[in-house]
Amino acid sequence: MRVICIGAGNVATRLSLEMQRVGFEVLQIYSQTESSASALAAQLGCDWTVSMDQVRDDADLYIFSVKDQVLPALVSQLKPNEGLWVHTAGSMSMELFKGHARRYGVFYPLQTFSKGREVSFREIPFFIEAACPEDAQWLLQVASRLSSHARLLSSEQRKHLHLAAVFACNFTNHIYVLASKLLEEQGIPGNLLLPLIDETAAKIHKLSPLEAQTGPAVRYDENVINKHLAMLTDPTMKELYRLMSQSIHKEAMK
Amino acid sequence: MRVICIGAGNVATRLSLEMQRVGFEVLQIYSQTESSASALAAQLGCDWTVSMDQVRDDADLYIFSVKDQVLPALVSQLKPNEGLWVHTAGSMSMELFKGHARRYGVFYPLQTFSKGREVSFREIPFFIEAACPEDAQWLLQVASRLSSHARLLSSEQRKHLHLAAVFACNFTNHIYVLASKLLEEQGIPGNLLLPLIDETAAKIHKLSPLEAQTGPAVRYDENVINKHLAMLTDPTMKELYRLMSQSIHKEAMK
Repeated sequence: MRVICIGAGNVATRLSLEMQRVGFEVLQIYSQTESSASALAAQLGCDWTVSMDQVRDDADLYIFSVKDQVLPALVSQLKPNEGLWVHTAGSMSMELFKGHARRYGVFYPLQTFSKGREVSFREIPFFIEAACPEDAQWLLQVASRLSSHARLLSSEQRKHLHLAAVFACNFTNHIYVLASKLLEEQGIPGNLLLPLIDETAAKIHKLSPLEAQTGPAVRYDENVINKHLAMLTDPTMKELYRLMSQSIHKEAMK
Repeated sequence: MRVICIGAGNVATRLSLEMQRVGFEVLQIYSQTESSASALAAQLGCDWTVSMDQVRDDADLYIFSVKDQVLPALVSQLKPNEGLWVHTAGSMSMELFKGHARRYGVFYPLQTFSKGREVSFREIPFFIEAACPEDAQWLLQVASRLSSHARLLSSEQRKHLHLAAVFACNFTNHIYVLASKLLEEQGIPGNLLLPLIDETAAKIHKLSPLEAQTGPAVRYDENVINKHLAMLTDPTMKELYRLMSQSIHKEAMK
């Protein structure tokens, strides 16, 4: 099974390295940035190019892992071939391949990736979609060589999944940013929050997040809430505190 | 070193068990709830009571681990003695002991505890305060038998720390609640988010939270943001999405 990656960013890097590790043959890397293409190709020991014209036509699977904004343009630049074309984007429809690829689908891993950080693929949920059922089955088989959690999902449902991921990853990380800031304003290193942050994530492996919820907002303790609001000088953080507390209380009352 | 715990909740349970494990002698547990007092005392193999009159006067350390609302009343019910009285509350001043205890202080662990969940104490930061310097030093020594991270902190600073903990723990957990809800509305099990949640927490052991920030809000991608806002039907979640995105963008621009 021969694979070409269009893209050499965080997802493309981790995914291509893992696919090679489990036995797929990565033929070639395309990136518009020469340094990214050559760096990833060097790790894989494969060919690379910065020109879509030079992308080989003899792969079985073409994985587009690029920014949403450039994805349609790159798809339109690849010459039609017999391979299956997929993208790894949470919010982009499968139909963007229509009129460009003969066979196409989606191969979406629900995880945050960094080029320099290894991550265990076995637990990552993969969400699969394809224009024809045979390709969907084939993609499920490909995903199941990487992960124990591969399943079919429509483009419409995938958009909701991506929205949930924005909450679970991007918003959670931003909360970490704000919490660290509050500590550092007191001259306390932000990383002293790490054990609390780790345990907060670990807890919901045993309890549902709703069961794990604690703090002044659950019982809407206005005494503590008002003291906290008075301590927050940044208007955005104040508003965020107010809204989060209301939302926590609302969920607790359901 | 003999210890009495006033309280048998989450903090009191984990803290008293760990103190006994590292060699302190837990003499007695007080709780207003008989079942809680007796259950924790059974685990410790010690005495228990539901009456503040019956609390022994021969301990070296009295640890008040109770809800903020009942803390002052319980402190006023304990007869003065020669022991050092401390509480474990983030937002309560040390001065609430004044006029009740001869020696007093604060012993605040920055962690979320559950009765039924063991947690490694070595990494938990302990924040110490005492009315006199000798007791502060003694409490630092006590804390350093439990953890590698014990330091002095004023009541005023501790309040800011507690506010940061509300963000890092309570607000983060609430984001997990909302993200799971978005998945479950699509018929997808919420626990498929766990690898993403774990990796989001793990990442900031290597990068600062600000460096780790990703997602549409960093570049304020209005196309994706508006699509996401349109998908959110709950007005509180919509407002939270808007505010979080603004706040992420604001921090990224600094």
